[in-house]
Amino acid sequence: MLEELKRQVYEANMLLPEYHLVTFTWGNVSGIDREQGLFVIKPSGVEYERLRPEDMVVLDLTGRQVEGVLRPSSDTKTHLELYRAFPELGGIVHTHSPHAVAFAQAGEDIPCMGTTHCDYFYGDIPCVRHLTEEEIAEDYERNTGLGIVEHFRRNAISPVYVPGCVCRSHGPFAWGTDCFQAVHNAAVMEEVARMDIYTRLVNPNAGNAPKHYLEKHFSRKHGPNAYYGQR
Amino acid sequence: MLEELKRQVYEANMLLPEYHLVTFTWGNVSGIDREQGLFVIKPSGVEYERLRPEDMVVLDLTGRQVEGVLRPSSDTKTHLELYRAFPELGGIVHTHSPHAVAFAQAGEDIPCMGTTHCDYFYGDIPCVRHLTEEEIAEDYERNTGLGIVEHFRRNAISPVYVPGCVCRSHGPFAWGTDCFQAVHNAAVMEEVARMDIYTRLVNPNAGNAPKHYLEKHFSRKHGPNAYYGQR
Amino acid sequence: MLEELKRQVYEANMLLPEYHLVTFTWGNVSGIDREQGLFVIKPSGVEYERLRPEDMVVLDLTGRQVEGVLRPSSDTKTHLELYRAFPELGGIVHTHSPHAVAFAQAGEDIPCMGTTHCDYFYGDIPCVRHLTEEEIAEDYERNTGLGIVEHFRRNAISPVYVPGCVCRSHGPFAWGTDCFQAVHNAAVMEEVARMDIYTRLVNPNAGNAPKHYLEKHFSRKHGPNAYYGQR
Amino acid sequence: MLEELKRQVYEANMLLPEYHLVTFTWGNVSGIDREQGLFVIKPSGVEYERLRPEDMVVLDLTGRQVEGVLRPSSDTKTHLELYRAFPELGGIVHTHSPHAVAFAQAGEDIPCMGTTHCDYFYGDIPCVRHLTEEEIAEDYERNTGLGIVEHFRRNAISPVYVPGCVCRSHGPFAWGTDCFQAVHNAAVMEEVARMDIYTRLVNPNAGNAPKHYLEKHFSRKHGPNAYYGQR
Repeated sequence: MLEELKRQVYEANMLLPEYHLVTFTWGNVSGIDREQGLFVIKPSGVEYERLRPEDMVVLDLTGRQVEGVLRPSSDTKTHLELYRAFPELGGIVHTHSPHAVAFAQAGEDIPCMGTTHCDYFYGDIPCVRHLTEEEIAEDYERNTGLGIVEHFRRNAISPVYVPGCVCRSHGPFAWGTDCFQAVHNAAVMEEVARMDIYTRLVNPNAGNAPKHYLEKHFSRKHGPNAYYGQR
Repeated sequence: MLEELKRQVYEANMLLPEYHLVTFTWGNVSGIDREQGLFVIKPSGVEYERLRPEDMVVLDLTGRQVEGVLRPSSDTKTHLELYRAFPELGGIVHTHSPHAVAFAQAGEDIPCMGTTHCDYFYGDIPCVRHLTEEEIAEDYERNTGLGIVEHFRRNAISPVYVPGCVCRSHGPFAWGTDCFQAVHNAAVMEEVARMDIYTRLVNPNAGNAPKHYLEKHFSRKHGPNAYYGQR
Repeated sequence: MLEELKRQVYEANMLLPEYHLVTFTWGNVSGIDREQGLFVIKPSGVEYERLRPEDMVVLDLTGRQVEGVLRPSSDTKTHLELYRAFPELGGIVHTHSPHAVAFAQAGEDIPCMGTTHCDYFYGDIPCVRHLTEEEIAEDYERNTGLGIVEHFRRNAISPVYVPGCVCRSHGPFAWGTDCFQAVHNAAVMEEVARMDIYTRLVNPNAGNAPKHYLEKHFSRKHGPNAYYGQR
Repeated sequence: MLEELKRQVYEANMLLPEYHLVTFTWGNVSGIDREQGLFVIKPSGVEYERLRPEDMVVLDLTGRQVEGVLRPSSDTKTHLELYRAFPELGGIVHTHSPHAVAFAQAGEDIPCMGTTHCDYFYGDIPCVRHLTEEEIAEDYERNTGLGIVEHFRRNAISPVYVPGCVCRSHGPFAWGTDCFQAVHNAAVMEEVARMDIYTRLVNPNAGNAPKHYLEKHFSRKHGPNAYYGQR
């Protein structure tokens, strides 16, 4: 079942090492078929060089595994809660890419310092709070997802306009309309995190790009008046 | 038309990923035929691995597209204003190379700290001011070009001796006598930005190279008494 | 003798350049056969591109060379003391990987700042004290090993739960149940050292991950209730 | 003439891009035949991918070109003065490798912070003073060499024990008993400069390795009691 989606999710997973976003098995990509209510995700702990399309695991939105002999990614419940809460999401990715992790470990949003960021994320990329001892003991991976959802809702951040975040002391999650766009956004997040770290080395007090830069660059690539790229 | 120039501009564009100056489609190179008053530029948003020489777009110096079925780079008007204002320019490149972007985001000139810089840029590489809300609303990309021109003219900086700049909160533009030299200068700018960041890590108060180093190294490679390279 | 172990130790050594953990010959891997009380180690100063499985040197736990025409690694006595003191160790690796070296040179533990670290090391990766002039004069490499053993014992750190350390002004040692796991842990140490340096660039006062994150992530991958990976 | 030396110097030059020590043409290697009093050096400004063994230029120790149709490296006189002053030198290399350049631009010695450094350089790698306006006007490249010689003599530094330096606001020179060892030392210098920068990021007040570490590690690899490597 879902052979085409499994192939896509496999290929999107294989982009992680190609884009230097993962070391060893530290990442996973999923993609969803909204009509059937099923999503496909990388199996847990399988090395990328051994991964095959048929290893992908299929689950429904209650978390029940409906196909695949391997265990799904240990982060599966995080993906599940994001798919449930945000119906616009078609693909999700988690990595431990080092510059984005630095913001997660520092407990800071990735600030929108320039047009590279503006082109993809409409504002700062939020750092989601620590989970409590109880939340971790109870259901760590599910509560990771619920923590992200809570943050976006409480702060009225659109997951479509800001397609990613970093989880405090952990690392980045990114998403998109499909699994390839999710990986693309994860790569952008890593790159803007890197640029921001370099920027602070030049000037520790460097601030955000002006708001009108953000408006211009985001709308140039997204929305009804976009004119970047080909028709 | 301009098949040879299109091939050159194509090849110069393909140097950007080879020199690690671009991520995804974040860059563009153009080249001009001054006799015909036509310039050739990369199409907008096309991935480098799919780019072909025949995809290059040809425009005249009023901005009218005279050949090519694809839309030109979204930064085309910036290139256009630079070609109009500075007749010495034969090629222009824009990238989001991360160390040069750091200076753009920090709002600082890239200081001339050593002979690597002196060999190519006669003095600091300027950081051009923010555009106003009005300038962005009116004609963003054209005003980006006009902002660069304004900066070089007001500060009496020669675009031949200082073949590049960074635009505040955005990123680098570089140029040269042809599209290959433009890309070469963009790579040098990224490398000296990287060296300057490392230098400040060693000594946050490190200053510029002495003026007589700048005179010596620039004149050793450029001008009537140059003796670097082969005759 | 020990042809299979020699092949494994050879292959584990060859992973060091592949993982970018060594420059030139600055690293060595060993593996032990506990039943026979013999260990296999890289020969000293041999370039990786010329290394062959049959070059591996076999020693017993008194340090006597029992096979091989080449001299063993100059760090052999350090490996020997670790194998003697910690019977759980099946493989050991030493490198000069630059981010881990930075903590060694700075004289600081590599702090446990996030889940990447928690997944492999149960707490900070310790920086072991300087050796005295007498310890160096007497038997440098043996005392390096004894210094590590002393540190883990005095501070009641389990070498199974914290499979590595950095030696002050020197560099990292890592280990595992076999030579491949040792190299894996060395790569993780380098990566978390890199992430921690980036984290301090974002926030110089960034602290450790909460203790309950450490408990959760370590137990998720290790011990009786582990559920990461495949059964 | 000197076909074997020309081949060696060619190969040593080709190691510069392989070791990531040069961008474009920013580096040069030479080697000397002491018996004949002739040295071989890279031609000026020739790209590495086009370089051929027969392009190497041969000069005598008065600076007279005795073979080769191409101009020698613009830094030839610097090499010449070093060969004249230090008869132990068999090969010399100059690069603009970025971490070593950072110390040159910051005007600081590369401090001996750990055993990686101790293994190759017996103490800090000195930063040689700026040249005066007069020295640059008179004979820049020759005075660069004389400045290095002056620094080593005044400070009683042995060029055999400390096989390299950085020239203020410029970059590194390294040398060795032949052209390959010179390139090896240039790569070590770049790597220890990188490690030192990382070390200061961990602890801005990190100091040098203890003197007895330096004694031990240097003598372990060099001199009559060396025991690193094979006999």
